Amino acid sequence: MNDETWIVVKKKTKLNRPVLVVGLPGVGSVGKLVAQHLKNEFDATKFATLYSDHFPPKVTMLKNGTIRMPSNRFYMLKNKKGSRDIVLLIGDDQAASVEGQYEVNQKIVEFFKDTLKGEFIYTVGGYAPGEPVTGSPKVFGNASNRKVVAQLGKSGILFGKSRGMIFGSAGMIIGFAKMDNVPAVCLMGEVAFVDLDAAAAKAVLTVLGPQLGLSIDTKNLDKIISRTAKALKEVEQQMMQQLQMPQLGQQQPIAPDQNPSYIR
Amino acid sequence: MNDETWIVVKKKTKLNRPVLVVGLPGVGSVGKLVAQHLKNEFDATKFATLYSDHFPPKVTMLKNGTIRMPSNRFYMLKNKKGSRDIVLLIGDDQAASVEGQYEVNQKIVEFFKDTLKGEFIYTVGGYAPGEPVTGSPKVFGNASNRKVVAQLGKSGILFGKSRGMIFGSAGMIIGFAKMDNVPAVCLMGEVAFVDLDAAAAKAVLTVLGPQLGLSIDTKNLDKIISRTAKALKEVEQQMMQQLQMPQLGQQQPIAPDQNPSYIR
Amino acid sequence: MNDETWIVVKKKTKLNRPVLVVGLPGVGSVGKLVAQHLKNEFDATKFATLYSDHFPPKVTMLKNGTIRMPSNRFYMLKNKKGSRDIVLLIGDDQAASVEGQYEVNQKIVEFFKDTLKGEFIYTVGGYAPGEPVTGSPKVFGNASNRKVVAQLGKSGILFGKSRGMIFGSAGMIIGFAKMDNVPAVCLMGEVAFVDLDAAAAKAVLTVLGPQLGLSIDTKNLDKIISRTAKALKEVEQQMMQQLQMPQLGQQQPIAPDQNPSYIR
Amino acid sequence: MNDETWIVVKKKTKLNRPVLVVGLPGVGSVGKLVAQHLKNEFDATKFATLYSDHFPPKVTMLKNGTIRMPSNRFYMLKNKKGSRDIVLLIGDDQAASVEGQYEVNQKIVEFFKDTLKGEFIYTVGGYAPGEPVTGSPKVFGNASNRKVVAQLGKSGILFGKSRGMIFGSAGMIIGFAKMDNVPAVCLMGEVAFVDLDAAAAKAVLTVLGPQLGLSIDTKNLDKIISRTAKALKEVEQQMMQQLQMPQLGQQQPIAPDQNPSYIR
Repeated sequence: MNDETWIVVKKKTKLNRPVLVVGLPGVGSVGKLVAQHLKNEFDATKFATLYSDHFPPKVTMLKNGTIRMPSNRFYMLKNKKGSRDIVLLIGDDQAASVEGQYEVNQKIVEFFKDTLKGEFIYTVGGYAPGEPVTGSPKVFGNASNRKVVAQLGKSGILFGKSRGMIFGSAGMIIGFAKMDNVPAVCLMGEVAFVDLDAAAAKAVLTVLGPQLGLSIDTKNLDKIISRTAKALKEVEQQMMQQLQMPQLGQQQPIAPDQNPSYIR
Repeated sequence: MNDETWIVVKKKTKLNRPVLVVGLPGVGSVGKLVAQHLKNEFDATKFATLYSDHFPPKVTMLKNGTIRMPSNRFYMLKNKKGSRDIVLLIGDDQAASVEGQYEVNQKIVEFFKDTLKGEFIYTVGGYAPGEPVTGSPKVFGNASNRKVVAQLGKSGILFGKSRGMIFGSAGMIIGFAKMDNVPAVCLMGEVAFVDLDAAAAKAVLTVLGPQLGLSIDTKNLDKIISRTAKALKEVEQQMMQQLQMPQLGQQQPIAPDQNPSYIR
Repeated sequence: MNDETWIVVKKKTKLNRPVLVVGLPGVGSVGKLVAQHLKNEFDATKFATLYSDHFPPKVTMLKNGTIRMPSNRFYMLKNKKGSRDIVLLIGDDQAASVEGQYEVNQKIVEFFKDTLKGEFIYTVGGYAPGEPVTGSPKVFGNASNRKVVAQLGKSGILFGKSRGMIFGSAGMIIGFAKMDNVPAVCLMGEVAFVDLDAAAAKAVLTVLGPQLGLSIDTKNLDKIISRTAKALKEVEQQMMQQLQMPQLGQQQPIAPDQNPSYIR
Repeated sequence: MNDETWIVVKKKTKLNRPVLVVGLPGVGSVGKLVAQHLKNEFDATKFATLYSDHFPPKVTMLKNGTIRMPSNRFYMLKNKKGSRDIVLLIGDDQAASVEGQYEVNQKIVEFFKDTLKGEFIYTVGGYAPGEPVTGSPKVFGNASNRKVVAQLGKSGILFGKSRGMIFGSAGMIIGFAKMDNVPAVCLMGEVAFVDLDAAAAKAVLTVLGPQLGLSIDTKNLDKIISRTAKALKEVEQQMMQQLQMPQLGQQQPIAPDQNPSYIR
């Protein structure tokens, strides 16, 4: 426990040429929704835990009255014979410092490549485009090299259409995979909501399923999608009312000349 | 002094299967009030001091004209024959960086377990529930394992009823205790005031006393409680007056249309 | 890859007494514009890349669908026979922490001096004077020693006329060059725009060209300059309109007594 | 230069049982004013420079066209025969990170004690009391131990009358001096201005002079004091005018009901 980032393997296991799916917190919680969904639908088994002195210094209170240290957890999902086994990486936290991000994400790639003999990495995130989302959300891809772009270019993933930066694990893991010659891709669902966007997660699962050799039921996500749509409508109605009837104590000064009818 | 966090033991002592009570700064100052109260009521003796390069870089001015480096201080309280001795951890500071929190709190658990041969840890904190506090404050508990939950579940501590995160020492020490197999629990008094809540401290002492084998007089806390109640009433009255007579220069804009009677 | 900052050399090459031109992000993007312009005009070749755990933890999405880790990249530009070869340092990032700035910039100076046997360093930045810029932008210089000041004092560079601090690589590299006895100068174009100021970049290129033994065509920069001038006029017009017609919902309270005509 | 904080000694010298006066940036710039004044009045000689990777990453532009790395500089002032020699510590920067503060200040104490064989440390700072300063500014003291309090208690320094924390070098150096058994005191002039308070600096010099065995002329400070007083009056007049005539665009909303005469 001298190391600043370390992985405790609880169950030794032999995996068949595994692929990794990384679903950590981020834009729209898309990665988290995707990885959790795979874990629940296919009943994946936890086999290793990553701890780090760079995670936020807190513990999570659990329903059974105990606590959990900040961690990223590896689950395995034995696939059909002949297909690659799947490893999921799930957690509530990412490293909280610049240098910690480098250390933790490099460790993840190293563990997957050297210890698990892994052969491909998917990270999952959300992408908020400048304009409003219309129709079903797109899935953008950014790969570790052009060969991966060519391989996945016809599977419903848009390459070269997203701009800017990918922050945190979803981006850094692809970067370290590139440096370590592990083919990898970051899949980003187009999000309309930055907190939680189940429609974006569903879109990613739709393109990811065939790649993983899985047939994925997304009914659970549909429930979240319709619940979000309902909540959104309520928020919109409340905003309309507030615009019409400002309340006392609001931190929202309105210059008198803007609404002459109230003053005169 | 090469180490970044180090403990200076001033008085060597033999303790009987000690338990640790951690009372460092935090929500409602509950931990600090509880540990200070135990120290004063039972005249505990300082025997060791923890220093760290991760504490805020400042010294405290003392009444006698000297200064004190940032530190966490260990006090001992020899208990009745047959009962476990008690160690208190008191201080004005917690580590100021992410990595420092890990280092300092791990050091505390290690010192208590390996050097003091300690057997149980209580950390004390405050918990601010979403709704207003009614009646006497509740005490929430989060333990290092289910055995502790079962042991303490009938002593007036609510397990599994608090949600979210426990930040800093109160949480991290339970986390490291779990990793090091030291049974431990975080007790959180329900707070109405985030700065100082003596009622929450009293509630914690009420459930903690029997566990420690101590009969604790809380008269001193009662004084603080009634002083707080009085101060609160004054603040409320002032707020009422301010609402009625806003002063020039306040950073509190009130839209003209909200209070037509003043304008017309 | 154990080191926290490391340089990967892809093409080994022999350079003739090279000079370094550093163009990293900063005030007015002057350094970046200058270095990019030299790279494009003279078709410089990338030969080494610097990576660091202190760069911001993110990857850049590229047009070809792949990604790039944060890095500073070295390009070489073989010069006319007899003239010094030129090395350009280009990148989108600087170290994100205090200690990282020291480590990365020291590494750059060390690599240039010890590995490339470099003999002179130019860093390029922007300088925002207190008063408005009139006429063509000035170029301010700050050197590693007085000999450099004497050498360059008659080449259109103003020494001793700028005040305050030079933050980041443009300053620190001169500081480490001074410590390592590499003659060096920071050239700062006078900027009117803190984001992007092509006129300042052109001014620096005008004094830098003769020093490097290069005749530099700046037509491309002229396009940016006129585009900026046009955009500026539009912004000014919009601001004038906004001053005359405040919109509902703006965070810009106007006290009633300031514009009596609207109220009465 | 592998070390993160290091001291370069340029002139080897033999000092007679030296005392250290630390004047680094802080409240009211009192420390800086005091140390600079001693340096100028007694023509002290620079003999050593402390550099650190923890100082802010920037260089200072100098009037001669060159630059200076962030540093703390040691000056010596040979005293009358029989009196202790004086070492001044002057600089524009303090460490910019928590851990850096511990490293740099510990290094200063270690160098003074072990290399210079120093015997007493004065740090100088400013203290902003809750109430307005009336009459000539007081000088508050906080010592490393009670013996120093007893020694200096009758020299016009108020011990045990200041409350709270001393941040940064002025405090930490006293703390490390206490740990290393070097008698030390922090002298804080009572400040009315947090940026620059020459009256507070003069007050400190008045009590410090006899301790150092120096007769100190403070005419230069008197000029700053009267200049500050004049500037203050102008600011007050401007504020009065602004209160009477609020300007368009100020971020200072005034509710209409507060000043009915303007509205009706």
